[in-house]
Amino acid sequence: MNTSTETSTLTERYQAVRDLTEQLALPISPEEQTIQPMPDASPTKWHRGHTTWFFETFLLRPEQPDYRVFDDQFNFLFNSYYNAIGERLARPNRGILGRPSAETVGHYRSHVDEAMAGFIDSDAGQRREIAELIELGIHHEQQHQELLLMDIKYTLSQNPIRPAYRGRDLDPTPAVPQEWLEVSGGIFSIGHLGDGFSFDNELPRHEVLLDPFKIASRPVTNGDWLEFMSDGGYQRAELWLSEGWAKCDTAGWSHPEYWIQADGWHQFTLDGVTKLDRHEPVSHVSYFEADAYARWAGARLPTEFEWECAVRRLHPDGPGEQDNSLDTGRLHPGGPGGDRLYGDVWEWTASPYVGYPGFRAAEGAVGEYNGKFMVNQQVLRGGCCLTPRSHMRFSYRNFFPAHTRWQCSGLRLAL
Amino acid sequence: MNTSTETSTLTERYQAVRDLTEQLALPISPEEQTIQPMPDASPTKWHRGHTTWFFETFLLRPEQPDYRVFDDQFNFLFNSYYNAIGERLARPNRGILGRPSAETVGHYRSHVDEAMAGFIDSDAGQRREIAELIELGIHHEQQHQELLLMDIKYTLSQNPIRPAYRGRDLDPTPAVPQEWLEVSGGIFSIGHLGDGFSFDNELPRHEVLLDPFKIASRPVTNGDWLEFMSDGGYQRAELWLSEGWAKCDTAGWSHPEYWIQADGWHQFTLDGVTKLDRHEPVSHVSYFEADAYARWAGARLPTEFEWECAVRRLHPDGPGEQDNSLDTGRLHPGGPGGDRLYGDVWEWTASPYVGYPGFRAAEGAVGEYNGKFMVNQQVLRGGCCLTPRSHMRFSYRNFFPAHTRWQCSGLRLAL
Amino acid sequence: MNTSTETSTLTERYQAVRDLTEQLALPISPEEQTIQPMPDASPTKWHRGHTTWFFETFLLRPEQPDYRVFDDQFNFLFNSYYNAIGERLARPNRGILGRPSAETVGHYRSHVDEAMAGFIDSDAGQRREIAELIELGIHHEQQHQELLLMDIKYTLSQNPIRPAYRGRDLDPTPAVPQEWLEVSGGIFSIGHLGDGFSFDNELPRHEVLLDPFKIASRPVTNGDWLEFMSDGGYQRAELWLSEGWAKCDTAGWSHPEYWIQADGWHQFTLDGVTKLDRHEPVSHVSYFEADAYARWAGARLPTEFEWECAVRRLHPDGPGEQDNSLDTGRLHPGGPGGDRLYGDVWEWTASPYVGYPGFRAAEGAVGEYNGKFMVNQQVLRGGCCLTPRSHMRFSYRNFFPAHTRWQCSGLRLAL
Amino acid sequence: MNTSTETSTLTERYQAVRDLTEQLALPISPEEQTIQPMPDASPTKWHRGHTTWFFETFLLRPEQPDYRVFDDQFNFLFNSYYNAIGERLARPNRGILGRPSAETVGHYRSHVDEAMAGFIDSDAGQRREIAELIELGIHHEQQHQELLLMDIKYTLSQNPIRPAYRGRDLDPTPAVPQEWLEVSGGIFSIGHLGDGFSFDNELPRHEVLLDPFKIASRPVTNGDWLEFMSDGGYQRAELWLSEGWAKCDTAGWSHPEYWIQADGWHQFTLDGVTKLDRHEPVSHVSYFEADAYARWAGARLPTEFEWECAVRRLHPDGPGEQDNSLDTGRLHPGGPGGDRLYGDVWEWTASPYVGYPGFRAAEGAVGEYNGKFMVNQQVLRGGCCLTPRSHMRFSYRNFFPAHTRWQCSGLRLAL
Repeated sequence: MNTSTETSTLTERYQAVRDLTEQLALPISPEEQTIQPMPDASPTKWHRGHTTWFFETFLLRPEQPDYRVFDDQFNFLFNSYYNAIGERLARPNRGILGRPSAETVGHYRSHVDEAMAGFIDSDAGQRREIAELIELGIHHEQQHQELLLMDIKYTLSQNPIRPAYRGRDLDPTPAVPQEWLEVSGGIFSIGHLGDGFSFDNELPRHEVLLDPFKIASRPVTNGDWLEFMSDGGYQRAELWLSEGWAKCDTAGWSHPEYWIQADGWHQFTLDGVTKLDRHEPVSHVSYFEADAYARWAGARLPTEFEWECAVRRLHPDGPGEQDNSLDTGRLHPGGPGGDRLYGDVWEWTASPYVGYPGFRAAEGAVGEYNGKFMVNQQVLRGGCCLTPRSHMRFSYRNFFPAHTRWQCSGLRLAL
Repeated sequence: MNTSTETSTLTERYQAVRDLTEQLALPISPEEQTIQPMPDASPTKWHRGHTTWFFETFLLRPEQPDYRVFDDQFNFLFNSYYNAIGERLARPNRGILGRPSAETVGHYRSHVDEAMAGFIDSDAGQRREIAELIELGIHHEQQHQELLLMDIKYTLSQNPIRPAYRGRDLDPTPAVPQEWLEVSGGIFSIGHLGDGFSFDNELPRHEVLLDPFKIASRPVTNGDWLEFMSDGGYQRAELWLSEGWAKCDTAGWSHPEYWIQADGWHQFTLDGVTKLDRHEPVSHVSYFEADAYARWAGARLPTEFEWECAVRRLHPDGPGEQDNSLDTGRLHPGGPGGDRLYGDVWEWTASPYVGYPGFRAAEGAVGEYNGKFMVNQQVLRGGCCLTPRSHMRFSYRNFFPAHTRWQCSGLRLAL
Repeated sequence: MNTSTETSTLTERYQAVRDLTEQLALPISPEEQTIQPMPDASPTKWHRGHTTWFFETFLLRPEQPDYRVFDDQFNFLFNSYYNAIGERLARPNRGILGRPSAETVGHYRSHVDEAMAGFIDSDAGQRREIAELIELGIHHEQQHQELLLMDIKYTLSQNPIRPAYRGRDLDPTPAVPQEWLEVSGGIFSIGHLGDGFSFDNELPRHEVLLDPFKIASRPVTNGDWLEFMSDGGYQRAELWLSEGWAKCDTAGWSHPEYWIQADGWHQFTLDGVTKLDRHEPVSHVSYFEADAYARWAGARLPTEFEWECAVRRLHPDGPGEQDNSLDTGRLHPGGPGGDRLYGDVWEWTASPYVGYPGFRAAEGAVGEYNGKFMVNQQVLRGGCCLTPRSHMRFSYRNFFPAHTRWQCSGLRLAL
Repeated sequence: MNTSTETSTLTERYQAVRDLTEQLALPISPEEQTIQPMPDASPTKWHRGHTTWFFETFLLRPEQPDYRVFDDQFNFLFNSYYNAIGERLARPNRGILGRPSAETVGHYRSHVDEAMAGFIDSDAGQRREIAELIELGIHHEQQHQELLLMDIKYTLSQNPIRPAYRGRDLDPTPAVPQEWLEVSGGIFSIGHLGDGFSFDNELPRHEVLLDPFKIASRPVTNGDWLEFMSDGGYQRAELWLSEGWAKCDTAGWSHPEYWIQADGWHQFTLDGVTKLDRHEPVSHVSYFEADAYARWAGARLPTEFEWECAVRRLHPDGPGEQDNSLDTGRLHPGGPGGDRLYGDVWEWTASPYVGYPGFRAAEGAVGEYNGKFMVNQQVLRGGCCLTPRSHMRFSYRNFFPAHTRWQCSGLRLAL
């Protein structure tokens, strides 16, 4: 699964991303594409429709006068959260869509792709602000590619017969000792730099003052986590944030999401139930658990500034083939190779998600992309095994609420 | 849709009922068959699987030694509520079943039907208690046939694009005045009589003492209901039971389920959105609404004993072709013809659902069929436009909680 | 606590009942009088105010022209559920009333009592329909007397320091074997007879047809219940109604309300925590538990008609001094003496609460007294140790939802 | 109400704070002291007990060998959230405490005060770490003093008869234009400085890098807020954070807490219902509302660092007599005088509540004071009209969840 978008034309990149979404959805039957197992996880069919709706709504409808709308009702069905676009299907009700069928959504995608193919090459499509919107749509779809896989994983896991998305055997992960990388303090520039694409929340680029710090050479592993569990990690209130402890109690957490105890520890993966690999980075833990683990380990989570600063220095070339991204096709943390600063798991940071100094959302519907979520969420950095490599970068800021676990999230320690 | 089972062999009746279920599910896509829009309504696919599981579990597994179980996991997935059979998928989670696919459920049905075909004709299948169990399975499946259609209707209605199950135009219903039929009092025998099939809750046959009463010649119509609404029926607390008024308030009821006000009253039907026909029997009202209506009308609901007694006297031949059952294919209350005592809508009675004097549930799992639901439900009598005609009878006792409206329920007045 | 009302004048009876309420509230501090521990249980202060409001609203305001209303706001605060009287404080919010103080409520009571004293003796007060309303108010207050004690018991039990209402030692209850009393079948008259007071739900008197039956000579005891528990009564689904089993599971029931296991079984009583007496009638069980117990015992609960019929024959003189009512001052089931058909505990019957044939609620607010609760409740008969003796009678129909346990409810078996 | 603690001895300060709590509770009856109107607001009686428990638990029990515990059960009842101390009454259940009575809590306070009086002067009490703990207890009680008044206000407001805590007329607030104060950028030291008391969350003192900014000379007023409302502030999704908009919708917000529209705008205050004063600082708004207002005004909220930096420069002497604190006795925002940087209302900042770099909670129970709440809360700065003046300081960090409004919170704009 090559997700490279760097060296190709906009048209090529558009088509590659659109094709990849369909390829990712392929192993999933029409029935499975329809299910919404919880409010946070959307049906596959809906992801496929919504990413298409984005191009139709923000490009074809307003900018392509002779565009014929595929189905007027889709504007209601596939709007995610854009108030400026109008009324929409409430998020927890996305599982009610028996129709349009998975097949019809495929026709919708083809219809829009055909129109977009013409549009990108047209004069209008060449305009800078239009090209930027297309680029945004491509990156938007990449975000949904990893969400699609996370949501499928959750959907399949809830089925008592635990069907697999795929049936491969996962290569084992080698043991790698954790080392501490030292980073000296000072004033650093944070945020996106250069001409490439970034979301608005990666800007404005600005300076921060950091003390010297140490950051771990690898994420916390399943084996590390088992020690935390053996030491009463899920039973000792003093390790937890107050809200985290309450959640742990009401949800009955005693291990990461997807772990299964049955003749030794196993976990549910996109390749079905497998034996737990101690050397893999731990995944599907909430911020509350990550924070408790760090306290137990006598360490802390890095801030997002520390993370960005460390990665720029220690891994200046950005994510590459050695990093476990969607492109490797493993679809699970770990695998061959040693220390990695990118990939495997999204890494919780100690930073709540707020706008950078001077941040202002864009006018209109596109401005609803990031800014309106800047409260009660934590920043995660790095990218995971389900993230297209071309979607990872130094300045990328992912965010989730502190109690969520269905996303592929882990942690790296700091001191 | 001929549902006759009276004059044919057990094998023929088995096959006819099984085929009809598949025929009823046919217009529904695999995606739509998978959806559970609320805890009370089950997915089509689940109904198809569960009715099959019934034959496999109560007949083939225990009585047919060389039967090969289709899939062991189905015993967990398709058990509805039989504690004696073991653990099962929780009822509100039936919508999580992406797999087995609608197609696989079809294979499951064929597999069991094939085994049953041999079994019914075998010596074992001829034994009286076995034949009775098969008969029970047939009637069980008929119950699910009407539930399947009610659940589909609800599922489709929740989809914002309101897809239709079918696309016919409904014949109009003629105006019929309401008259009062008088029934003299005395001691009457209540409950199932004779050799034909009945559920255990229709027995023991016993005597009740009734005062003289009057019963309406036809159910309350949509036109009657509009008068109730115009007269503030949904705003006047004094007409309602206390619990009903609270429910009306929190649920925001102001008309029957499926009614839509848009340039005059319309309703959602299995044939899509149609103009409201004033002469049709009102349907999809709760017991709370039916009770409030009767109070408003200066009348009351009949008891289930009054209903049974009146029907036996006034319509001694039982349901026939003139009655609006599933067999007419209308799939909606009303239609040509005049007064009917059967069909159109299940009629709420004033009787809470309790066991008849001397009632005891059977031993074992089959005993869980009816007895354990005998609290906090109201009895409905008669059968509706989705009920197979061969499933209707004098003594049939249907039951639903007082607040439910997704079933095809209406009312007939008494004095 | 003598609650006799039979031989005294209306004025004397009015005053005696009013005084008793205050006497019952006396051990409870102003703070405790204010607490509402759950929606079903009202604060003591509220009971004291509401029973006073009844006389003010239905008698003094409409019938006594020169009556000066104590406080206009009390009409909002102390209306329980009478829609015809107007808006009111929502039931679950009764615990918000810091003011009026317990002392002010006392002044309110004196104010109304003074006005009532003059009114009862006036010409207006002598009119038949007025005298009947006063009688209704007296019986209404007696109902609240037992509710007041049940609610206090629940309130105190929720306080972790478990304060006692009183501190007496309870006399032990002698062992009494259970015998079966036989009652022959036939047509019986049911409902209130004669000139004395009754609620509207005890009428119209009407005939029912009963088969012969047997009824137990005493209620089920704590000792009996312990056997049910030892035999897995709370773990065996097959003994329970479906809704009861679900409630048992979500509420985590494993014994009656107020039982405490600590070095042997104890229970919380109005006299604090005491050792469980095996010979006492079991109390504070729900209908669901009572029904499961009866099934386990190979018996059933009597219908309310069987109960009334049996008691009229076997105990024709009505409740007396030997019966454990509020008048004995024990305030707990059991105590000296043998078989009793009245008192100790309200006895769950198999009968859902519906109106008798021909029942119609009165016009206006007073008509909201009973009729609007006739759905999803079970009838209890007999009266309990907190019921004023003069409030017990053959035809009395108490009613509670099947899942409730804070009332003093037990059971008697039938066959 | 003089809350000065600066120039007096520890004994004097201890006694002054303890006396003030009792003085603040005095207007509240025993019944009102018992009520918990929502999980966030505790009963007055509980505040009085809990602040006493703090001294008993952290000082007298461990450090004063001959101390006689007042009542062992109080350790369970009055522990707020200290897991290290053991089990405790769940927070939402604090309203169940009919006993201990308000009077008994008074005895508890006297008992502990007497023991503390001897202890403070003893050799043990003079030890530095003990003196620091006593100081912490004093400041802890000051926190509860303002909470006690906020909780009383909420409790009284929920009573339909809206009783007043006090009955004074509030002096009007003069109109003051909003001006922009400019602060130049640079590296600034943030956090507590010097020998005086601070909470652990005000440390470690550390440096931050700030851009130049402007900050408003006064908080947003009721009059400003009315303009926001007239301009559709509560109806325009684009002004709101996504989570804020959802909350606004489900809670039905259309104005600040305590505002009442009835023949012009009024508000509920500790002095009862009064006409809204346009020139008062707006209060009882959530972070979500404050953030939406700032966006509407074309401005933003200051960060907590900007706030601290601005106040240190512009108001270097700290809070004084001109600032509206608890000491002025107004008990409401506004009043005579012009621009104020302290007092009136706690001011929402744009900063989520996190630990300062290098922050580590203390070992043991006292370490649960602040650190475990550092997620999903926003920092507020400044102090309000219910805050003791001696409790306000430059570096004080208050915090509440973004949706809460019962605290006395307002806002000041920045650019």
